[in-house]
Amino acid sequence: MSAFNGGPCTDSHKPKEECGVFGIFDNDGLDVAQLTYYGLFSLQHRGQESCGIAVSQNRDIKHYKNMGLVNEVFTSDVLSQLKGEMAIGHVRYSTTGESRRENAQPLVTKYVKGALAIAHNGNLTNGDELREQFEQRGLIFQTTIDSEAIAYVIAGERLGSKSVEEAVVRSIPRIHGAYSLLVMSPRKLIAARDVYGLRPLSIGKIGNSWVFASETCALDAVGAEFVRDVEPGEVVVCDRERGLLSFKDNCRAVQPRMCIFEYIYIARPDSRIAGMSVYEARKNAGRLLARYCPADADIVVGVPDSGLDAAIGYSEESGITYEHGMIRNRYMGRTFIQPSQEMRERSVRLKLNPLRHIVEGKRVVMIDDSMVRGTTCRRIVGMMRDAGAKEVHMRFASPPFLYPCYFGTDVPSQELLVAWRRSMDDVKSIIGADSLGYLPVETLGEMIPDAKTGWCDACFTGKYPMPVPYDKIRNERGY
Amino acid sequence: MSAFNGGPCTDSHKPKEECGVFGIFDNDGLDVAQLTYYGLFSLQHRGQESCGIAVSQNRDIKHYKNMGLVNEVFTSDVLSQLKGEMAIGHVRYSTTGESRRENAQPLVTKYVKGALAIAHNGNLTNGDELREQFEQRGLIFQTTIDSEAIAYVIAGERLGSKSVEEAVVRSIPRIHGAYSLLVMSPRKLIAARDVYGLRPLSIGKIGNSWVFASETCALDAVGAEFVRDVEPGEVVVCDRERGLLSFKDNCRAVQPRMCIFEYIYIARPDSRIAGMSVYEARKNAGRLLARYCPADADIVVGVPDSGLDAAIGYSEESGITYEHGMIRNRYMGRTFIQPSQEMRERSVRLKLNPLRHIVEGKRVVMIDDSMVRGTTCRRIVGMMRDAGAKEVHMRFASPPFLYPCYFGTDVPSQELLVAWRRSMDDVKSIIGADSLGYLPVETLGEMIPDAKTGWCDACFTGKYPMPVPYDKIRNERGY
Amino acid sequence: MSAFNGGPCTDSHKPKEECGVFGIFDNDGLDVAQLTYYGLFSLQHRGQESCGIAVSQNRDIKHYKNMGLVNEVFTSDVLSQLKGEMAIGHVRYSTTGESRRENAQPLVTKYVKGALAIAHNGNLTNGDELREQFEQRGLIFQTTIDSEAIAYVIAGERLGSKSVEEAVVRSIPRIHGAYSLLVMSPRKLIAARDVYGLRPLSIGKIGNSWVFASETCALDAVGAEFVRDVEPGEVVVCDRERGLLSFKDNCRAVQPRMCIFEYIYIARPDSRIAGMSVYEARKNAGRLLARYCPADADIVVGVPDSGLDAAIGYSEESGITYEHGMIRNRYMGRTFIQPSQEMRERSVRLKLNPLRHIVEGKRVVMIDDSMVRGTTCRRIVGMMRDAGAKEVHMRFASPPFLYPCYFGTDVPSQELLVAWRRSMDDVKSIIGADSLGYLPVETLGEMIPDAKTGWCDACFTGKYPMPVPYDKIRNERGY
Amino acid sequence: MSAFNGGPCTDSHKPKEECGVFGIFDNDGLDVAQLTYYGLFSLQHRGQESCGIAVSQNRDIKHYKNMGLVNEVFTSDVLSQLKGEMAIGHVRYSTTGESRRENAQPLVTKYVKGALAIAHNGNLTNGDELREQFEQRGLIFQTTIDSEAIAYVIAGERLGSKSVEEAVVRSIPRIHGAYSLLVMSPRKLIAARDVYGLRPLSIGKIGNSWVFASETCALDAVGAEFVRDVEPGEVVVCDRERGLLSFKDNCRAVQPRMCIFEYIYIARPDSRIAGMSVYEARKNAGRLLARYCPADADIVVGVPDSGLDAAIGYSEESGITYEHGMIRNRYMGRTFIQPSQEMRERSVRLKLNPLRHIVEGKRVVMIDDSMVRGTTCRRIVGMMRDAGAKEVHMRFASPPFLYPCYFGTDVPSQELLVAWRRSMDDVKSIIGADSLGYLPVETLGEMIPDAKTGWCDACFTGKYPMPVPYDKIRNERGY
Repeated sequence: MSAFNGGPCTDSHKPKEECGVFGIFDNDGLDVAQLTYYGLFSLQHRGQESCGIAVSQNRDIKHYKNMGLVNEVFTSDVLSQLKGEMAIGHVRYSTTGESRRENAQPLVTKYVKGALAIAHNGNLTNGDELREQFEQRGLIFQTTIDSEAIAYVIAGERLGSKSVEEAVVRSIPRIHGAYSLLVMSPRKLIAARDVYGLRPLSIGKIGNSWVFASETCALDAVGAEFVRDVEPGEVVVCDRERGLLSFKDNCRAVQPRMCIFEYIYIARPDSRIAGMSVYEARKNAGRLLARYCPADADIVVGVPDSGLDAAIGYSEESGITYEHGMIRNRYMGRTFIQPSQEMRERSVRLKLNPLRHIVEGKRVVMIDDSMVRGTTCRRIVGMMRDAGAKEVHMRFASPPFLYPCYFGTDVPSQELLVAWRRSMDDVKSIIGADSLGYLPVETLGEMIPDAKTGWCDACFTGKYPMPVPYDKIRNERGY
Repeated sequence: MSAFNGGPCTDSHKPKEECGVFGIFDNDGLDVAQLTYYGLFSLQHRGQESCGIAVSQNRDIKHYKNMGLVNEVFTSDVLSQLKGEMAIGHVRYSTTGESRRENAQPLVTKYVKGALAIAHNGNLTNGDELREQFEQRGLIFQTTIDSEAIAYVIAGERLGSKSVEEAVVRSIPRIHGAYSLLVMSPRKLIAARDVYGLRPLSIGKIGNSWVFASETCALDAVGAEFVRDVEPGEVVVCDRERGLLSFKDNCRAVQPRMCIFEYIYIARPDSRIAGMSVYEARKNAGRLLARYCPADADIVVGVPDSGLDAAIGYSEESGITYEHGMIRNRYMGRTFIQPSQEMRERSVRLKLNPLRHIVEGKRVVMIDDSMVRGTTCRRIVGMMRDAGAKEVHMRFASPPFLYPCYFGTDVPSQELLVAWRRSMDDVKSIIGADSLGYLPVETLGEMIPDAKTGWCDACFTGKYPMPVPYDKIRNERGY
Repeated sequence: MSAFNGGPCTDSHKPKEECGVFGIFDNDGLDVAQLTYYGLFSLQHRGQESCGIAVSQNRDIKHYKNMGLVNEVFTSDVLSQLKGEMAIGHVRYSTTGESRRENAQPLVTKYVKGALAIAHNGNLTNGDELREQFEQRGLIFQTTIDSEAIAYVIAGERLGSKSVEEAVVRSIPRIHGAYSLLVMSPRKLIAARDVYGLRPLSIGKIGNSWVFASETCALDAVGAEFVRDVEPGEVVVCDRERGLLSFKDNCRAVQPRMCIFEYIYIARPDSRIAGMSVYEARKNAGRLLARYCPADADIVVGVPDSGLDAAIGYSEESGITYEHGMIRNRYMGRTFIQPSQEMRERSVRLKLNPLRHIVEGKRVVMIDDSMVRGTTCRRIVGMMRDAGAKEVHMRFASPPFLYPCYFGTDVPSQELLVAWRRSMDDVKSIIGADSLGYLPVETLGEMIPDAKTGWCDACFTGKYPMPVPYDKIRNERGY
Repeated sequence: MSAFNGGPCTDSHKPKEECGVFGIFDNDGLDVAQLTYYGLFSLQHRGQESCGIAVSQNRDIKHYKNMGLVNEVFTSDVLSQLKGEMAIGHVRYSTTGESRRENAQPLVTKYVKGALAIAHNGNLTNGDELREQFEQRGLIFQTTIDSEAIAYVIAGERLGSKSVEEAVVRSIPRIHGAYSLLVMSPRKLIAARDVYGLRPLSIGKIGNSWVFASETCALDAVGAEFVRDVEPGEVVVCDRERGLLSFKDNCRAVQPRMCIFEYIYIARPDSRIAGMSVYEARKNAGRLLARYCPADADIVVGVPDSGLDAAIGYSEESGITYEHGMIRNRYMGRTFIQPSQEMRERSVRLKLNPLRHIVEGKRVVMIDDSMVRGTTCRRIVGMMRDAGAKEVHMRFASPPFLYPCYFGTDVPSQELLVAWRRSMDDVKSIIGADSLGYLPVETLGEMIPDAKTGWCDACFTGKYPMPVPYDKIRNERGY
């Protein structure tokens, strides 16, 4: 089944959920909807497709969600109608046709104990299995998001539990995969993370009020003080009487595995994840890259914006001059009309434009965070040459993508990955660079020295922290 | 729980479902979405709040629904993306705050056998009970419409049934109240009515394709030939192989009871319900009214548009001249800014305006279909007097409203009904008329002589065809 | 030059201006923008394409205008920003591509004495000539509406005048054609009509405040008392000190000639034009039609809504029973998706639907206000036959259209008129009726006995009250 | 007079016109509207309030303009209707209430020779004087933009000229101030600049087609080759027969004076203005600042995005490490809900967020392009201290603003400028910095060594290239 909103609708595969969540339990008379608005606004980089806010007041949940950016969806009028004692919010990104309003979060439902709202970031590995089980019991599904299966699990567990937090604690072993979860029941706000802690979730405080956010930059945005991260497998519950309580029944069974790509690309540079500055991680990647993949060049240029931080690190380590050699147009909105093939061939430079003046006659090290299909990279190399660069040395502040991600990072299917089953030389000639370098996978630990967690680098190594569908493919094909 | 779209949101009570449904099973290569668009457009009078269309193709259901009129919600672009072999559509009216996009129909879900779409017209009497049962089993609800409970019942019955039609047949005894139902499964289109047949549902044919509609005017709209009505309690199923099949397991257990208010107000005059012309029924009401509540007057004026047909009947029977003595502004849209109290007192005439020229110095019989709270009526009587009418005799082409409706007609709570516990004289003086007359409840049978059904007039008599919550109130208060 | 808003843009010919104007000069602390909103809303039938309101406060004019209906364009927010001591408003209808926001009225400009806002209804016959003269003097035009030329004339005359009202009085002889004009200067509100009084304009009063409106139904709408009509050629000015002043320098030079089509079709039935009730005029037309074009028939049916009033008159005069034999769908909005040719052939009945029950086996007199191209009429006759009518007798409550209108009524070019150069028999067979009758042109005076004005019936007779471009065509072709 | 679109409307003062223009004369069958779309998109930084495109085909001009960003205003549908042989486009920025659709450009008019479209960047110094003269001649104005006065001048001069280009050449001496102008007549595209060349305008070429743009980055965007700049006072005309012709009648009368603020802030870093790279100019400013205003510090941080380029220059020259120490949220749209005063006090960090990790315990040199009122700067210094900076040294890559600009740069009134009549020490303590440094005005020439033009630095020095209203203020107040 599928719905659509203005655009064409295809159902080719399940959407990846790169998302952001924000929640607040108020004890100070704060405007929870407005704070959630600002929180989501600062998490906008994690999802630009749809967003939503649910507030709870007097055991009644109101919500509003729609396709669009936070500042498009929420007007003063809408926000002023969302009064409450607590709120959760969500920004969502989806890579394919499942761009539908029905799939926006939070998911607001009614269950045996009243209202129940859920927002989550991450992907379940047993989502389809759970759905099938529920359907076999006569249940129905109205969306294609994992939140709906999670809601069923929690609603089911609630029957035999003394409290909603107990139901969430009991649900964790049944929900496999990556998830950072916010749940709002009539009187409580609950936060939880999967046992591997694959997606981030931090706790903050404004006065006596509790705040939860995917990234610490959202705590900064609302003027909240960072308290600590929710632990992998932990369930944290806020209510009026008891304040903040922690349930660690599911903690420490396994080694934490934070998604390494949060550091490389997803998170904002001003966030700290598991204690490690994202900006510093990227600069470290640049430094390591300079050490392991040096280049004889005149200037270092980062691809804006994703390669800029690593470029500074590369420049520092190598001593090669850092330049803003490429400009990115900041006004590329969702409705931008793409140029025709004919125009693209006439070397239009709409999104990115190199500075001829800087580049001309120079040997350039171009730094980007990662390479997926290679098409953008080839275009960038071409632009630099058109602008007069004598040599173009591509360096990526991450290892080559080789394996699918089942935990919420959007990696296209393996055959589309430029590095899959290709030699470095082949890739180099595909993108047209004079040389090519990747961050060695062995250095990822060095990249995040302050991180108080292990990490998942399965997209680079194929070493998944838990059983995934790829295991079957691998067996079949003998990889 | 509740959501809202632009407007304020209150949850005071369950919305009444005055709605319209349309469905088509195509065997001729017709554009099912476009035909559903036209069908819904001709049922727009049954619901102006939201609408939706779901189409099924290759076992996959696509749908689009939103707040607004049919011609606002559906553009050529949207329709062109709804290709399919069958379709169902819905227009919805809701009287209170539960104006929310989530509550728009059809409800599209996934269940054990694939996609399942449901559109219905009517109100369940055991909706809350069903919800509670399901919640006790760990299920969740995402809307406040009965369709969701119906979907759970059907999905549950499907487990022990050989086919979806068998599941629907089995579901009928579990779903109490008033409903005309269209269900779309991956390969079948199913129509069903409650055992009393409280809401209409007709079958039509275009070539070899089957059409279902709440009213026959929708069959006319799409150029379909009327075949017959779905019988009370009947389940009709269309599929590719067998054409149209009927299941009458639930038929004839009880006496059919068509909602009499469909004839009085809800349906379009060019529809036939249970074989009886709605226009003729209204003219009959006017004739009966002239006979039982005559008036010594110069002209007969109908309140546009709902009183016009009865006014013709009254004029014919009484011999008093029929005049278009009051004009209705046709452009009153949903976003119309209501005048302030101060303006209303200065006798602005925005929606209705009497023709002074016609009315001045005349004794006028004003005909309307029915009176609810009496406020509109009092304003109309005042307008007529301001316009110079010498006498104003109010006549209503229905008995006085006295009891709540549990079957989908929007009647406000009893204390708000002007006729509740008031004498005719009191009501007359409240509305300021020179005389007052209602259609005697005993004449309702005479009003619809051609109708091949009994009827429900519980809103006038309190005689409900099945147990309803009012029974409890009545016992408590000793009415 | 041309602009467009979303739709395709053609510039084929100058748009006809069937419009409505409303103005108010407040002396009572009224909300002038809101009253103008209600006034325009009641004039919506005169123009559904665009609308606008300009208010004046402290010599500063603010305005808002856009494409769309009054209740779509104006929200509470917009209205609340339009505070002022006086206001003028406009609704506009345009038949062709010149549907552009720039052409919406009022036209708000700055001239030598400050702000100047103009709204008018009607068409100039020397508009092109004026434009050419001004262009030859180095002036520029930003719209294609006559208001801009009128503004230039007034602004030019202001230079040699003592007051803006003197400038308007002097302008009248230079502006030829049909116009009812509202002009707002920094401190005055001025109303004027062309010397023939081709378009209506009435004066009303709310307390001490003055109101002007194209039709009296707008006075009723805002609770204003009718005072009198602005006279042909008269200039009326309101200011704070002197109240209402009249300038009749241009009056009574010629015989007044009200557009007869205002009575036949354009105006609302509850309006009085030049003292004559529009509803009564239409009933008279029906009575005259019955007398001059009788029919041997069972029922009289009006084409809704334009033929209903005349149908009552026909029924009264002939004694043939009046029936609501055809239903019109009230929800046909601007964005309605038109059915394909193939669907139309399958006799879909979307906009109009006959009542088979009433029509079947009957000899029907169908009454409509007028016939232009004959296509709609042919479709109606076909529908009636499909619904079982034994005979269909078409009667039109106006003479046949034969000549172009240069004064603001939208008549297509002569070759498209079904009656142009065709015999009655030819027309009858084109539309497929059993008989055909028009209101004789000689009876138009009988139709409007109470009208205190002569009338223009040039669209039926070719007898124009002033020189028009058609004179040249006629000479060339020898008509 | 004023209009508004959704937002409140104030008329406090004439808007400053920081704008961008783009034009194309096609000789190769290019899609001129689409190229203009991309050109405007790359000039979006020069104006985000409204935009428009006018195309000319067969002597007929079509146009579309509206409030909003280029990618919001123009859809594929709209663009596909704008077919033509030439086009001009405009992006507009306005600082105050005169945000009205009527003021969007291009201005499309009709004059004695047919259609005339005008787009311009800059501000006239005799705009009010011209308006008054025209009004005294009986003319009217419909907008408050200078384009309307320019159109009147050109239309008037056209009467005595042999060609439109001659009219433009003759108009230049009558139009005082700053303007880069594109004019489209029925068959010609004309570009012109004021005699001082205060605003940039470049010529480019795609195949045989001619392109004009405010900045060279727009030439890059559409794949055009840079040909040369339009000279100060020059009129350049394109037509089908003669190609590109230049008229230099008004050239070289005065010394060219390019607006220095184009280099400092307005233009995009990848543009070249008068031969000088904007990026290099900014880096030079940073280098000069390091030389003249050194600081004893640990890191250099640029305020994103306007201070980043100068920060690199400062770092290079000083040897102090360059860091991305502050993050800017990229999603700040036009409809962003501003935080309440109370929230702002709780140090929310919505738009900018310092990286505590980088800043903590450090002595920081913060670089921004310029300081106007000081409020933003004070907030930035506060944020840096909150984030743990030990010292904050503010450095501005321009001299202090002291005088109004009459040529299109938006400088608030003198009393609001933080540097006006205040000592360096006072300013320093207002913003709370540990030290404060500005680029010395004497070094501006060193900043733009490659620029083939003189420059206007009146906003810093009060030395205006031509008589301006400030001369009167200065005399009165004795500055």
